[in-house]
Amino acid sequence: MTTPKTPARAVVLLSGGMDSAVVLAMARAQGFDCHALSVSYGQRHGSELDAAARVASALGAIAHKVVAVDLRAIGGSALTADIAVPEYGGDGIPVTYVPARNTIMLSIALGWAEVLAAREIFCGVNAVDYSGYPDCRPDFIAAFERLGNLATKAGIEGEGLRIHAPLMAMSKADIAREGARLGVDFSLTVSCYKADAEGRACGHCDACRLRAQGFAAANITDPTRYVPKLL
Amino acid sequence: MTTPKTPARAVVLLSGGMDSAVVLAMARAQGFDCHALSVSYGQRHGSELDAAARVASALGAIAHKVVAVDLRAIGGSALTADIAVPEYGGDGIPVTYVPARNTIMLSIALGWAEVLAAREIFCGVNAVDYSGYPDCRPDFIAAFERLGNLATKAGIEGEGLRIHAPLMAMSKADIAREGARLGVDFSLTVSCYKADAEGRACGHCDACRLRAQGFAAANITDPTRYVPKLL
Repeated sequence: MTTPKTPARAVVLLSGGMDSAVVLAMARAQGFDCHALSVSYGQRHGSELDAAARVASALGAIAHKVVAVDLRAIGGSALTADIAVPEYGGDGIPVTYVPARNTIMLSIALGWAEVLAAREIFCGVNAVDYSGYPDCRPDFIAAFERLGNLATKAGIEGEGLRIHAPLMAMSKADIAREGARLGVDFSLTVSCYKADAEGRACGHCDACRLRAQGFAAANITDPTRYVPKLL
Repeated sequence: MTTPKTPARAVVLLSGGMDSAVVLAMARAQGFDCHALSVSYGQRHGSELDAAARVASALGAIAHKVVAVDLRAIGGSALTADIAVPEYGGDGIPVTYVPARNTIMLSIALGWAEVLAAREIFCGVNAVDYSGYPDCRPDFIAAFERLGNLATKAGIEGEGLRIHAPLMAMSKADIAREGARLGVDFSLTVSCYKADAEGRACGHCDACRLRAQGFAAANITDPTRYVPKLL
């Protein structure tokens, strides 16, 4: 009789959208004990956090925590301040960019990883459909991994920690295909920036348009529910 | 008649303790318009945040914001979880270490700096009296500066941003002397990990001992008020 090896722990950032759901499924498929972390940064739609809880449970995370950080205090984004979310994408960095969001979310994940003695952090950062956000590039992830190894006990005493961004080079269609292959129930996920309290999507914002294009390109039916159109 | 040059903006992390008060005074002395930022991470003593507000006002910060991030959700420290604060320092990383605290606080400062178009972030990180915390070393600050330049508009579009840790190589006595030279009213500051609601210090924790030793070595009277001893 052999002693089963204890699975290694991972912290997985989980927003409630389709990308991070696929990341969680990928981390589970690699055999990690997944601790899902949602960061509530004062975003407008709490339905995203409800979705994250459902996704964490459905995909077998062994814990799900929500850490609140009130970024409304510093403003600067259509997602946290009183700025309208635009229906059409423009050039440059969009108003839906939350200043330093990925840095802040990864920092909190780093803190929880240290508490758990986890050496793996997974996030859904993606450079392909990144809408011009500066903190969605491979160089950023590499720099954060380096920082994390200087900032923590794991880095100075142990084997070091790794930041995984497995979607980095994938298109939205690739992500939809990979999720379908791993059995992700996309009906549990909410991608829309302006989803209503029931998690129904607007169908018009950048996030809705990128998601719809991705599913169409992958030839997979998206179970997203949309707010009914007024006639 | 010459047009006065607009002072450059800086974000200054301000805890309410003596170190960050001296940093704010140093940033003001360098001519920056200082935006003071306190991060409330679920620490036990709200008196520290009251102190931060008084210090910001007394030292001429043009704004003071408090951003709450509830690190109690992830636990792991005597300052945020239900672990006793020890009276005497030990070897290694102490239980008062808050996992990834400086990474999280600098990340939020980075977000506010981006909103303000500020290119300077000041913090009171110190490697001399650092109690064994891994995120209080020069390499950590350099790595965060590099990360910040990859993560933000300032880094990819502009002149870049700088992380200033002017206390890095100073002893507690040096810090007390510099504060006295710049007119910091140390009676407004609270350093104790276990201060009471009136901001009175315990006199026994690591933070109290380091502060008292520093003032003694600098031959400066510390106006700290202590909780009266029970006989």
